[in-house]
Amino acid sequence: MSIQFRPQIKDLVAYKPGKPIEDVKREYGLKEVVKLASNENPLGSSPKVKEAILRALDELNFYPDGNSTDLKKAIADKLGIKPTQVLPSSGSDEMVDQISKTFVNEGDEVIIANVTFPRYLSTAVMMGGTPVIVPLKDFTYDLEAMKASITAKTKLIWLCNPNNPTGTMFTEGALLAFLDNIPTNVVVVYDEAYREYVTREDYLHDSIKLLDKYPNVIIMRTLSKAYGLAALRVGYTMASEEIINEINKIRGPFNVTSLSQVAAIAALEDTEFLKKSYEVNKEGKLYLYKAFDEMGISYAPSETNHIFFDAKRDAQEVFVELQKKGMIVRPIFSTYVRVSIGTMEQNQRFIELLKTVL
Amino acid sequence: MSIQFRPQIKDLVAYKPGKPIEDVKREYGLKEVVKLASNENPLGSSPKVKEAILRALDELNFYPDGNSTDLKKAIADKLGIKPTQVLPSSGSDEMVDQISKTFVNEGDEVIIANVTFPRYLSTAVMMGGTPVIVPLKDFTYDLEAMKASITAKTKLIWLCNPNNPTGTMFTEGALLAFLDNIPTNVVVVYDEAYREYVTREDYLHDSIKLLDKYPNVIIMRTLSKAYGLAALRVGYTMASEEIINEINKIRGPFNVTSLSQVAAIAALEDTEFLKKSYEVNKEGKLYLYKAFDEMGISYAPSETNHIFFDAKRDAQEVFVELQKKGMIVRPIFSTYVRVSIGTMEQNQRFIELLKTVL
Repeated sequence: MSIQFRPQIKDLVAYKPGKPIEDVKREYGLKEVVKLASNENPLGSSPKVKEAILRALDELNFYPDGNSTDLKKAIADKLGIKPTQVLPSSGSDEMVDQISKTFVNEGDEVIIANVTFPRYLSTAVMMGGTPVIVPLKDFTYDLEAMKASITAKTKLIWLCNPNNPTGTMFTEGALLAFLDNIPTNVVVVYDEAYREYVTREDYLHDSIKLLDKYPNVIIMRTLSKAYGLAALRVGYTMASEEIINEINKIRGPFNVTSLSQVAAIAALEDTEFLKKSYEVNKEGKLYLYKAFDEMGISYAPSETNHIFFDAKRDAQEVFVELQKKGMIVRPIFSTYVRVSIGTMEQNQRFIELLKTVL
Repeated sequence: MSIQFRPQIKDLVAYKPGKPIEDVKREYGLKEVVKLASNENPLGSSPKVKEAILRALDELNFYPDGNSTDLKKAIADKLGIKPTQVLPSSGSDEMVDQISKTFVNEGDEVIIANVTFPRYLSTAVMMGGTPVIVPLKDFTYDLEAMKASITAKTKLIWLCNPNNPTGTMFTEGALLAFLDNIPTNVVVVYDEAYREYVTREDYLHDSIKLLDKYPNVIIMRTLSKAYGLAALRVGYTMASEEIINEINKIRGPFNVTSLSQVAAIAALEDTEFLKKSYEVNKEGKLYLYKAFDEMGISYAPSETNHIFFDAKRDAQEVFVELQKKGMIVRPIFSTYVRVSIGTMEQNQRFIELLKTVL
């Protein structure tokens, strides 16, 4: 007899990592390669982060504070909520997994947009849930259609706002109308990974107020994007104490590394770095919009640090051609490509190379 | 209607973190507090680790290599296996969770010793599995009883060797006899977290050879103990490519931070630090044995960096009394306490304080 894996995971596909930059350089004989594929902060991270890490390097032998006490307090104080409403995690990836494990059982329906952050789907399937896929409308979350998809079996709804990979957003008004009109036993996860880049005023900039009004809402944030800490895997989730307590039951006891905790605290304090990240991104976005307009390329309006555009040529081919020239982007599907907004120099280089490829 | 959590996690208990050392100092007005509660390496970690981290501090904005390519290669080269048989994780905590998610469904029986590493049990319950608890015999894994507990529903067996918290081990001969006599569809996870501290020759020092002979075996190792990297959460698992591929399907795409990856590579290279950790631990163990003998305290023979002893007084009381005096240990149950082996100075201080408490 041979060993048996859970049938639920049979059709899941392992994450396929992109080629390391060094491999791309070697393969194509390139001196420089620019990666605009993973929505990373092109400015690096706050210098205060390095200082905080240096101070912690003599204590690597000790387990992290499993409660992330100081980080929770820093977040809670900043946002005016209780530390018991906050739960740091090893990036959003880990929190999505934890949320699915807290709520989703065989037969539970989970409403997920297409396309959006892929881990919502894979963890729902992993837990034996039934994904209910709702297509985007004009590359934007279709909240009306999501609401119409709710049944007595609906357990969880995932909202990514603004959305990855399309960069689009829905308004505060649309969100509140949605939350006011769905059953209160349906859990809504509101993932704000890109919130710091939003320029529009009709976005829900202060999501904290959802916590009091909607006990079925979970808010997710990350330090991987505007805070520039992708390497360290740290994000945080806010919800009612009841929900946080339940997630805590299945959380790994030391899920955030010590260095990630001190780095996150330092990053959250550096509002100057955050402001600069926002400004550089906004400027880069306007530059890319203009270049796309001039090239006749259509794109979705972005409130994030990436732009989703129609290359009018097979996205995989565009990816390969650009990679040969030292520019890594992300093919999404069909002729749609996602490019992260870089420094102005990187953006210019991207447009220059894109012109040679299209 | 209110939100519903998965009933499987209802009775799970969230990890209760110990008090931070700073809080203990404040509460009891102490200048110095020694923590011998978490089996951490009292020597710190290799200086090469710091150097590796310093070199990586300018790239915190980039996502980790999701494949942990260099770390996998370092491990595979060192052990003479293929990188595709290796899977790094965010400590053993994360890997135990991943293994349960890969194998355990509602109704599956999971054989677990009592007492052992608690996460085997909590993740089995989390997945709806049925734990089959097999008591230790003389504080040691009772492999005969575990074998006798196997039924047609048995999916997974967890073996921790040497065991945490009792420190005891079973021999290579006992393990091979066990593996040769159980059904080949039962997955055996062999957790060697403390392997680097084992002094006995009849231990299976070269577990790699299990991989060829037993396709149902998964080997887990960690860098949190002898390598002194608990803060960074990094361990690794070895198994057949088939098993590694399945776990990969549900793994978070960036589960090990960039700094943890470079730190682990550096730590694995520093055999001098490892040797010193082994020697200091062995010396400390003999010192504690002698002191316990003189005090008439019975203890389980340890092949780890901790000793499980019978305080002949309520363990929780002993814990509180010692904490008041600046010494943190781990009460396990009844009158049994676990103390981590520290530096000679810490061990002496522990014995000194223990004498005042018992």
